[in-house]
Amino acid sequence: MTAPPHEAHPAGPGRALPDTQQGMRRRNLARVMHTVSAEGPLSRAAVASRIGLTRAAVSTLVDELIRTGLLEELGPERPGRVGRPGSALAVSARGPAGLGAEVGVDHLAACAVDLRGQVRARAVRYGTHRGRSPEPVIEQLAALVRRVVAEAEGEGLWPAGLAVAVPGLVARDARTVVRAPNLDWHDADLSALLPADIPLTVDNEANFGALAELWLGEGTPRDFLHVSAEIGIGAAVVVDGLLLRGTRGFAGELGHVPVWPDGPACPCGGRGCLEQYAGEKAVLRAAGLEPGEDRVGLLAQRAEAGDEEVRRALRAAGTALGIALTGAVNLLDPEAVVLGGALAGLAPWLLPSLRDELARRTAGPACPVSVSELGPEGPLLGAAHAVVRAVLDDPAAVAERG
Amino acid sequence: MTAPPHEAHPAGPGRALPDTQQGMRRRNLARVMHTVSAEGPLSRAAVASRIGLTRAAVSTLVDELIRTGLLEELGPERPGRVGRPGSALAVSARGPAGLGAEVGVDHLAACAVDLRGQVRARAVRYGTHRGRSPEPVIEQLAALVRRVVAEAEGEGLWPAGLAVAVPGLVARDARTVVRAPNLDWHDADLSALLPADIPLTVDNEANFGALAELWLGEGTPRDFLHVSAEIGIGAAVVVDGLLLRGTRGFAGELGHVPVWPDGPACPCGGRGCLEQYAGEKAVLRAAGLEPGEDRVGLLAQRAEAGDEEVRRALRAAGTALGIALTGAVNLLDPEAVVLGGALAGLAPWLLPSLRDELARRTAGPACPVSVSELGPEGPLLGAAHAVVRAVLDDPAAVAERG
Repeated sequence: MTAPPHEAHPAGPGRALPDTQQGMRRRNLARVMHTVSAEGPLSRAAVASRIGLTRAAVSTLVDELIRTGLLEELGPERPGRVGRPGSALAVSARGPAGLGAEVGVDHLAACAVDLRGQVRARAVRYGTHRGRSPEPVIEQLAALVRRVVAEAEGEGLWPAGLAVAVPGLVARDARTVVRAPNLDWHDADLSALLPADIPLTVDNEANFGALAELWLGEGTPRDFLHVSAEIGIGAAVVVDGLLLRGTRGFAGELGHVPVWPDGPACPCGGRGCLEQYAGEKAVLRAAGLEPGEDRVGLLAQRAEAGDEEVRRALRAAGTALGIALTGAVNLLDPEAVVLGGALAGLAPWLLPSLRDELARRTAGPACPVSVSELGPEGPLLGAAHAVVRAVLDDPAAVAERG
Repeated sequence: MTAPPHEAHPAGPGRALPDTQQGMRRRNLARVMHTVSAEGPLSRAAVASRIGLTRAAVSTLVDELIRTGLLEELGPERPGRVGRPGSALAVSARGPAGLGAEVGVDHLAACAVDLRGQVRARAVRYGTHRGRSPEPVIEQLAALVRRVVAEAEGEGLWPAGLAVAVPGLVARDARTVVRAPNLDWHDADLSALLPADIPLTVDNEANFGALAELWLGEGTPRDFLHVSAEIGIGAAVVVDGLLLRGTRGFAGELGHVPVWPDGPACPCGGRGCLEQYAGEKAVLRAAGLEPGEDRVGLLAQRAEAGDEEVRRALRAAGTALGIALTGAVNLLDPEAVVLGGALAGLAPWLLPSLRDELARRTAGPACPVSVSELGPEGPLLGAAHAVVRAVLDDPAAVAERG
């Protein structure tokens, strides 16, 4: 995995790539894996009818996937079905696993997810990383990852790749954290600091949060804008089920969309950016609170208790979000906006003014805004599932390595 | 052509579509067409080496494309080359042609472009359509199209499809103009009004303008934001060479991005939208001029002559564009912004303040802003070339119809 998976890079007929028997086999292996993953357990005949290939062709593909440990046979199907009983196929619960890891501002986490999507190992470590240099933080993360790997290996799994979510801008090399203002990291190359024997992908936490929403959320559409916040405000644009990354990999910088262009100066160089009104620091200031531990919890608790100053601050943040999202919705025409991360916990007080603003600035019906049910787990799960998806998308590559 | 071409709809391995010999043949026919189109004239051997198939496989494909009139042989290659002389292949200058048409606020146009990309017939009609109902306007357009078709048929071409550019929002059915405020059209279905025997696609003029920029512009990147203006301000988002359309087909509504959110009311329901500062009406008002014929020409002429009021109005419009584009660039991270349509003619007076605003609101190097060289021709050419591209993308479909 040298490039980030799930990019908007369709291989259309305009590309002069050879379309060979070998390429067809690879794609058909992926179709079998995806079909069994989404609908299994299934017999070979059921797989064949679903993907439109002959039973014989499917059997050859399935045999290869069983041999390389990606599929397993559950034994003969229970009687009572029509025809000769076939053996039901399922995605293997052993074999390759996706490793996810997260660098939060106040915590580190790692987990292993098997091909069936089950979390099989997990480790978390709390403590702030503000102003710490990348090396010791990443060393601690590497220790968590090793712990998770050891635990997963004990269950017959092996790591197919590691994906790391970070709260910052990541270059398209999927290794370099170009800028993570809340950690004060600049141009930090993570590849030297994590296990060298496992293929590595680094990405922005909003991107992995959006992918988690897409893959694991209930009824998430394939075109949506995922807005997430920890300390800054990030967003991820998903178009037809693929992340829009941008030329440098920096797409989704909602926090620096100008809201009131003559407003307060922002460290980004601009004025009146969304973060100046709806970022954590701005909201705490407007609510008359001091930055400290569990700031979102504190805001939610005060708002719940009826603190009018806090409620007013959150209403104002919702209004600013509504203005920035009006621009985003006009540009992108998504099917929905989903609020995740810290925003999800504050949604009861942000949403009314946000929705009002969006509705009164929109000619037709306003774009629906919903709240993520994955909450702060999203980016970590999205990272691990990105690795799992990469295996399903090209099982032949894993078989070659495995 | 029942769906708009060139959408961001990659057929990734996640889709359970059968990958058959037949599908492979179709895709390889497309590869041959695209290769000869981009690099021809080429011998069969040269095509084979470029697309990575055997000479025999390519010969079979080429024979089929010659039989259906999409490729032609130019006769034996000139001697002096190594090996047995082969016959050079070129895309046919007869056979299928793309028809483009445009409904402007003050003009109608139609043209025919052959598979080599040459304009072979063209017709224009001037006169304002403001406040006219769609039927008589489209009847006039249909007459222009018939004239162009007759002319093209006289040269051995036949229409493979018709694409119509309109200044408004078009539904994803690629037939219904949902809203064209400057024509005062609402939910106008164009399919009944144009030649029924020719496959029809209707799309927003900014989208076709962007495609023209992508396909015909010098050095246009594959990721860019195309900003265009006639009377309203539209934009088109191109990601990896594909248009981002949005759920309803309405993506790219830059004109209704809030710039100063407490500014003047906009007919869209919002306040302080970009069109309130940089739309034609707003600029004319700020410049103290009356709306009339050739408004852009008048503005350019006055600005050129040193009229300080006009220059100030254009500077202010550039500032508003810069603020709106800061938001768009933060969200999309495009490689470039290209100004087309009427904006191109006013660029000398808009660009300095636009670029200033973008630069001072951006932390790193600002996104480069350039000016289209296609000018007002873009949407019409983009429409005709969209049909030509659809033929190159699936020559088998044309052969079945032709």
